[in-house]
Amino acid sequence: MFKGKVLVAQGGGPTAVINQSMVGAVLESRKFRNVELVYGATHGVRGIVDENFLDLTQETTHNLEMVAETPSSALGSTRDKPDLKYCQEIFKVLKAHEIGYFFYIGGNDSSDTVRIVSEEASQAGYDLRCVHIPKTIDNDLMVNDHTPGFPSAARFVAQAFMGINLDNWALPGVYIGVVMGRHAGFLTAASALGKKFPDDGPHLIYLPERTFDPEQFVSDVRRVYDTYGRCVVAVSEGIHDASGAPIITRLTEHVERDAHGNIQLSGTGALADLLVDLVKQKTGIKRVRGDTLGYLQRSFVGCVSDVDQREAREVGEKAVQFAMWGERDGSVTIHRTGFYSVDYHFTELKEVAGKTRVMPDNFITEGGNDVTDAFLMYLRPLLGRGMPDAYRLRNNYVPKVLKP
Amino acid sequence: MFKGKVLVAQGGGPTAVINQSMVGAVLESRKFRNVELVYGATHGVRGIVDENFLDLTQETTHNLEMVAETPSSALGSTRDKPDLKYCQEIFKVLKAHEIGYFFYIGGNDSSDTVRIVSEEASQAGYDLRCVHIPKTIDNDLMVNDHTPGFPSAARFVAQAFMGINLDNWALPGVYIGVVMGRHAGFLTAASALGKKFPDDGPHLIYLPERTFDPEQFVSDVRRVYDTYGRCVVAVSEGIHDASGAPIITRLTEHVERDAHGNIQLSGTGALADLLVDLVKQKTGIKRVRGDTLGYLQRSFVGCVSDVDQREAREVGEKAVQFAMWGERDGSVTIHRTGFYSVDYHFTELKEVAGKTRVMPDNFITEGGNDVTDAFLMYLRPLLGRGMPDAYRLRNNYVPKVLKP
Repeated sequence: MFKGKVLVAQGGGPTAVINQSMVGAVLESRKFRNVELVYGATHGVRGIVDENFLDLTQETTHNLEMVAETPSSALGSTRDKPDLKYCQEIFKVLKAHEIGYFFYIGGNDSSDTVRIVSEEASQAGYDLRCVHIPKTIDNDLMVNDHTPGFPSAARFVAQAFMGINLDNWALPGVYIGVVMGRHAGFLTAASALGKKFPDDGPHLIYLPERTFDPEQFVSDVRRVYDTYGRCVVAVSEGIHDASGAPIITRLTEHVERDAHGNIQLSGTGALADLLVDLVKQKTGIKRVRGDTLGYLQRSFVGCVSDVDQREAREVGEKAVQFAMWGERDGSVTIHRTGFYSVDYHFTELKEVAGKTRVMPDNFITEGGNDVTDAFLMYLRPLLGRGMPDAYRLRNNYVPKVLKP
Repeated sequence: MFKGKVLVAQGGGPTAVINQSMVGAVLESRKFRNVELVYGATHGVRGIVDENFLDLTQETTHNLEMVAETPSSALGSTRDKPDLKYCQEIFKVLKAHEIGYFFYIGGNDSSDTVRIVSEEASQAGYDLRCVHIPKTIDNDLMVNDHTPGFPSAARFVAQAFMGINLDNWALPGVYIGVVMGRHAGFLTAASALGKKFPDDGPHLIYLPERTFDPEQFVSDVRRVYDTYGRCVVAVSEGIHDASGAPIITRLTEHVERDAHGNIQLSGTGALADLLVDLVKQKTGIKRVRGDTLGYLQRSFVGCVSDVDQREAREVGEKAVQFAMWGERDGSVTIHRTGFYSVDYHFTELKEVAGKTRVMPDNFITEGGNDVTDAFLMYLRPLLGRGMPDAYRLRNNYVPKVLKP
């Protein structure tokens, strides 16, 4: 345990509970006597190279607790991914401010940033402890049973589809809801957690773990519609054809790519509209509607899992404990130990960094258009307490008089 | 007060609290000795002509209470608008089942249905009491201070934009959120209720009460972006040009119309995508994202105003009381009597039926791109208890060392 300042930063897409992790790391750091000051970099690594630090040792515990319960990244975030030159700028700043401990909260891109910074620091002989704190609504970090941020986003998606199913029952037709998730279908699959009765939707769930066949899709929709007189579909934004090309690229002429080379999937309703047109044209069903759940999935204020909040707080705390009492850099990972309980391990960065976990086969039905009970068992405890429930009237039909 | 069966039905778009009104009417009806049985027609007037009735006298009070708290229309809904022939079919069925009291829960199209049925019944000499129970997330019924369903949808929109603002602060750019509302901008205006700090979004709000000028819009966005380095915009799906043509028709070649002749605005992300492209092209700003809040606004399970629930329940109860103790048909209307309290009146159907109320001028700023404090005062008490709050870190900036 060496003397030094602590620096906390947040990277990638915000979540409902990422501030819990930040506050967990800050408050735990403030307890250690070898820590002189606790800084927060604004907008991730970008804030480091720009030397934009908030002194979180001057922040009240009360306000930190209030911020912890506020969704999105209170320090701001970034999509920047440092290369060697960027890292050298980072070291220059860290050295100037005598930073000894760097905690970066983020997903697989951010964990790769931590890995690069860690390696470069080591090669440069700079005494810096780098710890990655997990966060992603995509739930796609390796080694982890699940990742903070996912349970709350999953709860939002489940509650959204619970309502969508009721709405679609009241005014029947086909409804297609597009859910976030580039490579991993966990969040889309969460739509199934709103189901209660056997005829409830979503009746069909399409995940990026399987190839999306438009003809099979249309045929599936027609079959469900013929059975129930309606059809609710959950589709991942990341669905792709056999070649791996996202279905959305079939429509848009000019695709936008981020710093990581990823095609922009969110922030546009194009995929839902494309699928709606496809169903209208091929089936002749009149009432076909599509929604893209969009940024509400990760930012909506007022839909959070208490399990998620608790775990997000704990990975922040554990990160500081691992950094202070341990001898190496790493990533905090979550491991399930009961139904339901978890423990936290300190994993080598290379095991997590830049890798993507997808849904295991036993979570997906053979037909590839629904989830299994194993998935429901996996997800249910993560959604936490107080999940809403949907009720319906019983079918006490009055005998017909005119047309008996 | 004459003997007869009670028939309750739900029309138009579902809301989070429309089942409260249904259950209020059912439970109150069950107390009257002149009421033999209480039926519910499935899918509105369509269920009447199809003779699809549920016997709600055989439903448990407990399950009715559970259904009351469940969003969407538990009896099912319809977009059908009866003409004379349709009405004659209705009377035939009502007569066969000895229905004496007809309660129809819906918006301005549904209230017009009640007016038509009422007039036709009167001309046909059929002894039928017809009462319209107000419901619409659009908040556009005449005479009413506000309408059940709107406060909960408004709360959803406020909480959504509260989160969107935090998300947009963390990863700055331009965000455009499209909100439901064909002619009335109340729901879009509700986005302002998520604001706390002076620099919070939505920074711009575009309503169907004002002509939408794309050039002014782009110029507004650029000004806000130059000031804050980001911009959150709330736009009503019903925005139109000077000729009254919806902006969405500028893009789509084949528009879909419903039975009332309305162009389909919801269930497509086209308007948001159109506005995003416009801002990208005209301003050169890179990160521009659009969402269409879609059906979640009226169906999301787990975001409801307790004030809305209470009032929705009361208009159902009052409808039965007005019908039983009164001598005429009418519509239950809500009137504000304090800050905050309401009373219920029984209004002539022709005052409400088929008419549309829009935002009064004093709720809209002179520039036409924001709402006034008068609107915030109007809406705040309707959102109910336990509104979430957003907190931020204080700006205790650390002095720069390298570039002071």
